[in-house]
Amino acid sequence: MQFEELLSLFKRRGVLWPSAEIYGGTAGLYDYGPAGTALKRRLEAAWSSWFVGLSPNYHLIDPAEIVPEAVVRSSGHLAHFADPDVTCGKCGQHFRADTLLEENGVADVEGLAPEVLGRMLQEKNLPCPRCGERALSLPRAFNLMFGLDFGAAGKERAYLRPETAQGAYLSFSRMWEVGRNQLPLGIAVIGKAYRNEIAPRNVLFRMRAFTQAELQIFFDPENFSVPLDEVAGEELPCLRAKDREKGATEPTPIRAGELVSSGGIPSFYAYHLAMMLRFFRDVLQYPADRVRFLEKNEKERAFYNRIHFDAEVRLDSLGGYKELGAVHYRGDYDLSRHGEGSKTDLRVTPTGGKTVLPHVLELTFGVDRNLWALGDLHLRVETPAAASGGAAEGGQEEKEPRTVWALPPYLAPMQIAVLPLIRKVHAAKADEVAERLRREDGFTVVVPLTASVGKRYAREDELATPFAVTIDNQTMQDGTITLRERDSRAQVRLPLEALAGRVRSKFVPPRPTFRA
Amino acid sequence: MQFEELLSLFKRRGVLWPSAEIYGGTAGLYDYGPAGTALKRRLEAAWSSWFVGLSPNYHLIDPAEIVPEAVVRSSGHLAHFADPDVTCGKCGQHFRADTLLEENGVADVEGLAPEVLGRMLQEKNLPCPRCGERALSLPRAFNLMFGLDFGAAGKERAYLRPETAQGAYLSFSRMWEVGRNQLPLGIAVIGKAYRNEIAPRNVLFRMRAFTQAELQIFFDPENFSVPLDEVAGEELPCLRAKDREKGATEPTPIRAGELVSSGGIPSFYAYHLAMMLRFFRDVLQYPADRVRFLEKNEKERAFYNRIHFDAEVRLDSLGGYKELGAVHYRGDYDLSRHGEGSKTDLRVTPTGGKTVLPHVLELTFGVDRNLWALGDLHLRVETPAAASGGAAEGGQEEKEPRTVWALPPYLAPMQIAVLPLIRKVHAAKADEVAERLRREDGFTVVVPLTASVGKRYAREDELATPFAVTIDNQTMQDGTITLRERDSRAQVRLPLEALAGRVRSKFVPPRPTFRA
Repeated sequence: MQFEELLSLFKRRGVLWPSAEIYGGTAGLYDYGPAGTALKRRLEAAWSSWFVGLSPNYHLIDPAEIVPEAVVRSSGHLAHFADPDVTCGKCGQHFRADTLLEENGVADVEGLAPEVLGRMLQEKNLPCPRCGERALSLPRAFNLMFGLDFGAAGKERAYLRPETAQGAYLSFSRMWEVGRNQLPLGIAVIGKAYRNEIAPRNVLFRMRAFTQAELQIFFDPENFSVPLDEVAGEELPCLRAKDREKGATEPTPIRAGELVSSGGIPSFYAYHLAMMLRFFRDVLQYPADRVRFLEKNEKERAFYNRIHFDAEVRLDSLGGYKELGAVHYRGDYDLSRHGEGSKTDLRVTPTGGKTVLPHVLELTFGVDRNLWALGDLHLRVETPAAASGGAAEGGQEEKEPRTVWALPPYLAPMQIAVLPLIRKVHAAKADEVAERLRREDGFTVVVPLTASVGKRYAREDELATPFAVTIDNQTMQDGTITLRERDSRAQVRLPLEALAGRVRSKFVPPRPTFRA
Repeated sequence: MQFEELLSLFKRRGVLWPSAEIYGGTAGLYDYGPAGTALKRRLEAAWSSWFVGLSPNYHLIDPAEIVPEAVVRSSGHLAHFADPDVTCGKCGQHFRADTLLEENGVADVEGLAPEVLGRMLQEKNLPCPRCGERALSLPRAFNLMFGLDFGAAGKERAYLRPETAQGAYLSFSRMWEVGRNQLPLGIAVIGKAYRNEIAPRNVLFRMRAFTQAELQIFFDPENFSVPLDEVAGEELPCLRAKDREKGATEPTPIRAGELVSSGGIPSFYAYHLAMMLRFFRDVLQYPADRVRFLEKNEKERAFYNRIHFDAEVRLDSLGGYKELGAVHYRGDYDLSRHGEGSKTDLRVTPTGGKTVLPHVLELTFGVDRNLWALGDLHLRVETPAAASGGAAEGGQEEKEPRTVWALPPYLAPMQIAVLPLIRKVHAAKADEVAERLRREDGFTVVVPLTASVGKRYAREDELATPFAVTIDNQTMQDGTITLRERDSRAQVRLPLEALAGRVRSKFVPPRPTFRA
């Protein structure tokens, strides 16, 4: 779906809107409305079910968003977490130097020092994109962290965490005690991260407060066995750094097994790339041909990252591939830095094993960005010809064009709509049925009352509600209901008692499968 | 349960620990471990199910935590959200003046101006509680908000929200458009609020970052009808302001109907007090004799609150009644202030009704505080005599003393433990059963492998897991399992197929009941 169309539908249906809108909005901040809030929670649950489900020794925790200065000093964020800020001397607007250059056709500027970017900008002598004057300053390193005066004395300095990962590293010792004394140990965090972006844009893609879901896997580098054979045949759409240097822009599928045998990638890394592909393709149901894994070269990736592939997805609304996740092999950087900074020995001795300072494999996932992608990729306008009809298993055929949000049922904000055919006659029964579905199974159920049944179907299609139950005169007589399935529009009549059993497992997000 | 015992168990079992602990901790910040994170999410879901369940026109949203300065200028927080800070001139420690006085036997100091508190402190001439010197400063008003330099120019000022309510007020216009154009309209927010507390303490009770669950009900003051008759007989343990002025310290039960007919309280207010009582008593299962509603007098409550009762619960760990929620009748203060501040007309015209600036009834709930209370009130040590045995429906009697966390099943972090009787023989079957329960119903299932079955029961009892399923030789033969119920320790053998149906509805949190 295109950008304006998607944003407008999201606002109209209560998925999201600019924050503090009545005060003119706050750049880089959005509020989630009822549908967005429900979708976001389900997306987080699906992520957690999949990635925390990779091992019984992986756990979800919820550490504080505020970290003391010592933490970001150790992590390197205090010294290095900066973007190159350019200011227009005429109109006062701020820009990112690297974005300015990219927008003017200069490639591969990511990670370059402000001085280097400055020389490139001087050569180009660009006008200000806002006011047109040639009055852009030289870039300065602008630290993206939000600082806080912490405590009544005003002397302690703290920061809003720039990434959720730090909370996992800080909790490693405690988790080691709570857990099984075994590696790998996985610590997942779903929560807010904060960055004072120079130029927020693309709605959910460059925000100043956003939600990350990240899994930090702590492992012994000499002993991290994964069931590679389970994914060895999985074709990973990789765009390797060496191919990019030769000018390649499209990914080449390579089997996970080959990536290890001839691609120089360790098996634990290839395995997790494959599991991430499966999450995008099988759980979020993104079309496989829109996903690619882009390998960052040494210049682009953070110096502590030994291997770094971004998981990118091609979105029509944003005109190209966008980073929606990543896999980082961070070595022992994190525990080593925090061990030094806190003067704590973070080495551990697994039961029956050698003492080791664990390495970290980090799997990242942008919750807001993927929420946007779920709109871009699953919202579609169906003309009557394209619609697959709905006469299957009986029921009336629907011929109207419609907008349908074909989310997997376990991601849909509302699970079941119960529609009284005639409000005055069937509303009480509809409420009774809805209450029963809520109480016995905990389903989220809506009872739309206004407009015709056709219009109510249309509204629920747009909001992704996967199942609609219609209550009519026959329901009053024999206790059967009509179940309509969103995507096929197929309708089938069945006893009310059979409904929950028929839909229940569709609301459970998939989990990784392991051979016994 | 007592404070040290509870805190120690919470740390040991991975419920919570001090944040950034390896750096010495951060005052007023805690991290939730795996059990705490799961419990917190279920508690939020139970709150939402109950309070958002009060009406189909009530909705949960997720607005940004950062608000621009104009918002807190309108709300009054910029000018008034301050506590009286006293500093020791000798050791530099900071204290709250009102807390210092309370700890030294002076009652009713809440809400007094710094100058008044200063005169009282001078009369008392108190020593510093930390170093003992008589060197305490006079109180100064210390604003509790965390300020941020927002944007690259460093000129915009923004704040971490001091309460979630502001996000609901800012979203009112948008929600009016998305919704049914009807009052009452409820906007619920569950999320972080931030306060730079002068003296954080009592673990989860005075934190610098904490989670609130709040429902803002927007209504027409001339037309807010509630089904009072459904709760009219409910006895509310009220401690009225006028009785407190006469020295009363214990609540007097008064029926909700009487609170309206002779107590001078509007029916919409009494109704929501009763629904809050039911939430504490019937959903969180706090003992009813530990709950009281303390009415604040005009001096104590915020000037815009027309009626204010705190919902307090008596906790052994903190030695008295603690505020765990509240009901505030805020009049039209919020929409009126934000209407003026944003130059937006926030009046609405409900379908078929008159144009009105809605009033607000606010129901607040402290998520972290209640998580602590769920430990205090439901964790108990049972000696063999006190245990109710476990021979019911067959199965072996357990005679060991134990610590059991008797949380309602819908709040328990883990729902089902599947225990192989003998690891080597039954573990594969246990994994298979666990996977099936996860996939078909989405249950959260743990498979404990180490130690004896008795010790594994003990561990799960302490972690509140309500059901344990044991896999033994008979399971391999006839497909039956033993189901053990946590609280009664009763064991019953049943076919695996019957398990899910037997426990499923126990994991659904209760919803308010309405007569048809």
